[in-house]
Amino acid sequence: MALVVVDVMPKPEILDPQGKAVTGALNRLGYTGFTVRQGKRFEIEVDGELTEARLDQVRDAAEKLLANTVIEQFDVSVRGQ
Amino acid sequence: MALVVVDVMPKPEILDPQGKAVTGALNRLGYTGFTVRQGKRFEIEVDGELTEARLDQVRDAAEKLLANTVIEQFDVSVRGQ
Repeated sequence: MALVVVDVMPKPEILDPQGKAVTGALNRLGYTGFTVRQGKRFEIEVDGELTEARLDQVRDAAEKLLANTVIEQFDVSVRGQ
Repeated sequence: MALVVVDVMPKPEILDPQGKAVTGALNRLGYTGFTVRQGKRFEIEVDGELTEARLDQVRDAAEKLLANTVIEQFDVSVRGQ
């Protein structure tokens, strides 16, 4: 069982209202000098052996389902074989 | 300007309806043999030098605001100094 992580973040040029809201909340709580951007994290357990073809499937799924590639970018990383 | 990442995931023993929904959608799209858990990712730019005290502030903020520690666990990692 392999573990693959897909991190999805708003593209840098895209407004990030969630991140702005969290930044504001942190400031109000006294945590100053922090700028926050918020995204999604998917931990995917892959049955069987993690072949290159299976990894391509994860990338494909990330592009088609996990990220909205118009406004988001994603990164795929293998955490455990 | 340092970059600190806070990854927030549901605790393993907690039901993850979002992850289950994504797993189901992947299966319907033909991506079988994947089990997905979904969480949040925060990228935090920290003004000035990233001292141990500042990093403790990020951990404190994660515990108090970014994660609901009753049902979620979080991990703090430094990505760039």
